[in-house]
Amino acid sequence: MNFAAALNWRYAAKHFTGQTVSAAKLEAILEAIRLAASSTGIQPYEIIVVSNHTLKGRIHEQACQQPQIVEGSHLLIFAAHQTLSAADIDTYMARIARVRQVPLDSLTGFADAIKGGLLPMSPEAYAAWAARQAYIALGYGIVAAAVEEVDTCAIEGFNPTALDKVLGLPERNLRSAVVLALGYRDEAKDFLATAKKVRKTRQELFTELV
Amino acid sequence: MNFAAALNWRYAAKHFTGQTVSAAKLEAILEAIRLAASSTGIQPYEIIVVSNHTLKGRIHEQACQQPQIVEGSHLLIFAAHQTLSAADIDTYMARIARVRQVPLDSLTGFADAIKGGLLPMSPEAYAAWAARQAYIALGYGIVAAAVEEVDTCAIEGFNPTALDKVLGLPERNLRSAVVLALGYRDEAKDFLATAKKVRKTRQELFTELV
Repeated sequence: MNFAAALNWRYAAKHFTGQTVSAAKLEAILEAIRLAASSTGIQPYEIIVVSNHTLKGRIHEQACQQPQIVEGSHLLIFAAHQTLSAADIDTYMARIARVRQVPLDSLTGFADAIKGGLLPMSPEAYAAWAARQAYIALGYGIVAAAVEEVDTCAIEGFNPTALDKVLGLPERNLRSAVVLALGYRDEAKDFLATAKKVRKTRQELFTELV
Repeated sequence: MNFAAALNWRYAAKHFTGQTVSAAKLEAILEAIRLAASSTGIQPYEIIVVSNHTLKGRIHEQACQQPQIVEGSHLLIFAAHQTLSAADIDTYMARIARVRQVPLDSLTGFADAIKGGLLPMSPEAYAAWAARQAYIALGYGIVAAAVEEVDTCAIEGFNPTALDKVLGLPERNLRSAVVLALGYRDEAKDFLATAKKVRKTRQELFTELV
């Protein structure tokens, strides 16, 4: 769908039909998320993609039993890294060197800048920063799904500690930040499917200093 | 530009040419940001749009003198609300009632749910939540700019207290969360303009539980 039309078409679906999102559409959405911008480009998060019915049921229990969790086709759990080590940054530098075919030591200045900026952060501040980066990727994912005419509902209402245990995230240094359910809106069950979009006006949201 | 191509074309420009982004392209970007998803739809942020040269210079001083600040055409300062009151939620309910032409008292359940979820938060937790919502809008803005073939650089490296003072944000219950500079890449000055994009692979970023 046309980009502007997709943004207007999109809303946070409260009920899905259960129809499966095709592999091609899923891949387009995941590729957009993969290309999302992040500070320093380090992508301090991973995404768990759940299509298994039993597992969706277990997640449903930890997410206020919201119907989108089990009615949706796929769940994307955006999980942010909780700590960062110098070795993690070196891994990132090795990736850059490999992809761009540049010597690793040409990246020393960049590595030192990242290390100086991120390593001194408290664990709490780092985790909060990493979660914010995940929300940029969430934005990409919502938009990409709309372009593919796939409905979404972003969900924050869950018990992260319990959800993380279900998904085995703590042992991977990850904590769930937000869940994006993918599927197809159930117009018969969701009155919001036909409701007008409510947003602040141009004047309310933006202040121009020219 | 085609959506997928736009995401691949986009990178975080380190130098801009100084060329002005047209009013039509700016409006398309702002409209995408206006339509961005936010938890409960409350949009707990405002965006300051700066095109004034003198003001860009003052912001530059508070943002590590990053060249994109003064070389860019426009700066979008995503500023998150620092506190929320029951009256703010009522204002949001009045907006919904007006746009959807529904009686205000049909929204009592929704209002109570939002009040129950957001009002008990500590000021720090609320501000962090509001900033995360602003990052979704940031993601929309970056993507929309790319679709319009407008370059961007998201900037977190600034002194928020000093920047907020320059922009008069504290008295408006706002705190700058992130800055998005808009402009046109200067390929002669920015070696990243031709560098290969570096991302985690599909396998590194996503774990599928099927």
